[in-house]
Amino acid sequence: MRESSRSMVERLSSYRSVLCKLKTLGFVKVFSDNLGDALGISASQVRKDFSQFELKGNKKGGYQVDELIERLNEILGKNEVQDIIIVGCGKIGTALMNYNRFTSEGIRVVAGFDTDPTVIRPDARIPVLDLSELESFVERHGIRIAIMTVPEPPAPQVYERLVNAGIEGILNFTPMQLRSSGSCLIQNVNIEREIENLFYFINLQNRE
Amino acid sequence: MRESSRSMVERLSSYRSVLCKLKTLGFVKVFSDNLGDALGISASQVRKDFSQFELKGNKKGGYQVDELIERLNEILGKNEVQDIIIVGCGKIGTALMNYNRFTSEGIRVVAGFDTDPTVIRPDARIPVLDLSELESFVERHGIRIAIMTVPEPPAPQVYERLVNAGIEGILNFTPMQLRSSGSCLIQNVNIEREIENLFYFINLQNRE
Repeated sequence: MRESSRSMVERLSSYRSVLCKLKTLGFVKVFSDNLGDALGISASQVRKDFSQFELKGNKKGGYQVDELIERLNEILGKNEVQDIIIVGCGKIGTALMNYNRFTSEGIRVVAGFDTDPTVIRPDARIPVLDLSELESFVERHGIRIAIMTVPEPPAPQVYERLVNAGIEGILNFTPMQLRSSGSCLIQNVNIEREIENLFYFINLQNRE
Repeated sequence: MRESSRSMVERLSSYRSVLCKLKTLGFVKVFSDNLGDALGISASQVRKDFSQFELKGNKKGGYQVDELIERLNEILGKNEVQDIIIVGCGKIGTALMNYNRFTSEGIRVVAGFDTDPTVIRPDARIPVLDLSELESFVERHGIRIAIMTVPEPPAPQVYERLVNAGIEGILNFTPMQLRSSGSCLIQNVNIEREIENLFYFINLQNRE
């Protein structure tokens, strides 16, 4: 995943989120200047992004809010619910299984997986299944994306199983730094590392 | 926070984490090639990073593992426990209050804050306090870093209060994209956005 295309998708998501808020405020049209201001970028960057996806406005009248949202939904795959699974139902995994913001963003957690018999709940609204059922579940439901929230020791094995099961994208919360391969994209989220970064840069500023 | 210095700190953290594992395996010395392999970068990048921080090895004998760890601990502020607070004790906030990996990384959550009277627990091991106590707590304990896990509507107000209270770094889990200002560094973690990115790039690959 190239950093530049990643930032572009992030901008598209931000446009969409700002536009949805403007729509609830009654906006019918919007100008590249408005969106630039909201995102803290230049209006010409907005126009450049939009022209790349053939999102058309007109010079005087700006862009139609509804049309932009509709087209951004298409580009970002927001027109269909996106099913994901969570592997590792500890504290973070369990919190994410019931995360309100997934619902509002069209993301649906369809199952959790764990090896601890005391957390297995096949009959729950979002079932927690034994890890042994991973491969068959992924195949049966055509799951493409998994969140990995297992502890560090089993992480390498779980990663291999996910890739072999056909998972194409992993959001990795484990401390193991994974790298995207040809068949599987990785996004690492390392919360303790983020905090470490903040402390490092704050200390640096205070020394300067 | 410049992206380049950010990646550098991330590498320093990764070196440290690999070195700690090598130490438990009995390693006494290590070569730049070893660390390059482990991180998936070139040995010359490793040497460049190390020379920037006057981490010295010798050509034949490599680097001393203990010395490297000690020096990296100093650079990354790992020699002292780093106290943080969590504002917003919903699902994610509560999961982070009891996150094992913080302890092993020398990060200590000293309090949570919320406005919901049913979650306030001043006598808990990690107390959950009413948000009205935020400013006095931050001042009394010299807190510099906060994790923001409040819902979207109160996020702008909470952000302002944190900055005014003297917080210097925020790990922001709210959907509000914050930008670093002179007095406060921001690191945004938007989980739903990360999943959106994965779906986008997978769909793109499948179309190609």
